[in-house]
Amino acid sequence: MALDLHDYVASIPDYPEKGVIFRDISPLMGDGEAYKQATDDIVDYARGKGVEMIVGPEARGFIVGCPVAYELGVGFAPARKKGKLPRETVKATYELEYGTSSLYLHKDAVKPGQKVLVTDDLLATGGTISATIDLVEKLGGIVVGTAFFIELKDLHGREKIKDYDMLSLMQY
Amino acid sequence: MALDLHDYVASIPDYPEKGVIFRDISPLMGDGEAYKQATDDIVDYARGKGVEMIVGPEARGFIVGCPVAYELGVGFAPARKKGKLPRETVKATYELEYGTSSLYLHKDAVKPGQKVLVTDDLLATGGTISATIDLVEKLGGIVVGTAFFIELKDLHGREKIKDYDMLSLMQY
Repeated sequence: MALDLHDYVASIPDYPEKGVIFRDISPLMGDGEAYKQATDDIVDYARGKGVEMIVGPEARGFIVGCPVAYELGVGFAPARKKGKLPRETVKATYELEYGTSSLYLHKDAVKPGQKVLVTDDLLATGGTISATIDLVEKLGGIVVGTAFFIELKDLHGREKIKDYDMLSLMQY
Repeated sequence: MALDLHDYVASIPDYPEKGVIFRDISPLMGDGEAYKQATDDIVDYARGKGVEMIVGPEARGFIVGCPVAYELGVGFAPARKKGKLPRETVKATYELEYGTSSLYLHKDAVKPGQKVLVTDDLLATGGTISATIDLVEKLGGIVVGTAFFIELKDLHGREKIKDYDMLSLMQY
């Protein structure tokens, strides 16, 4: 009997600012059974896409992607903020509410033609995931899918990545 | 035939500063076979300790601990920097070369009496891991082991956590 994963999301009103409901996945990953079920759902999706490599943005993208990589027997590459990767990188910049931010990926993280799954905990406006997709494509990787624990539908992130296949385990 | 995991560590001289050799585990986690072998070594260690929960500091501690949690069927809790956890937390402060830093853990992340494995990619001076152990113990958890991909022996981190059992897959 599958768990209802929604039961493992903590909803925090007015965080980080008034009027926003923060969806916190820490109860999900803190529960062995729920974390395993969520991961296995993404593993099944990734197997169907022939995924050869997983890339996730720091830091919660690691929590989603790393066990999927392990179970598939493929590698995981972290997309990181400035100054965190010691070797040669590619860079992608994305818009924030105020200003911009950048993500980096090691140049040897993805091989040309490799089938890549991009993971994060939550799809909001889609800025972070679009930047991560950019990084993969700059290295010649093929983004065959994107996977999230949660999709915030009102923020229309799905439209921003409409050229890519997508799996979200829960929608709010 | 087991891989020699040392072949999957990139050593970068004079990074982040002159005279330091940075040991970068990204080639290891980028290779499906090497990442699986390293993870399975930690899984075996954790099984022997009866581990019920895994806690790792951001962000590379997630990359080590999350697949171990998945394979064991236990939960994972992230120890994070200030402002990253939305609910009630405990806090531990540790010394850096200049000044101090703090880590936080959700108050419900670990249950009293729970057997916890603490993971990080690399043991250097042991400041981060000691703070992570502190957090677990503040919540009544029992740290039954610590696990790292890499131990930098010259920095004597092992002495700092000598009251705890420890596994390091590689030593430099």
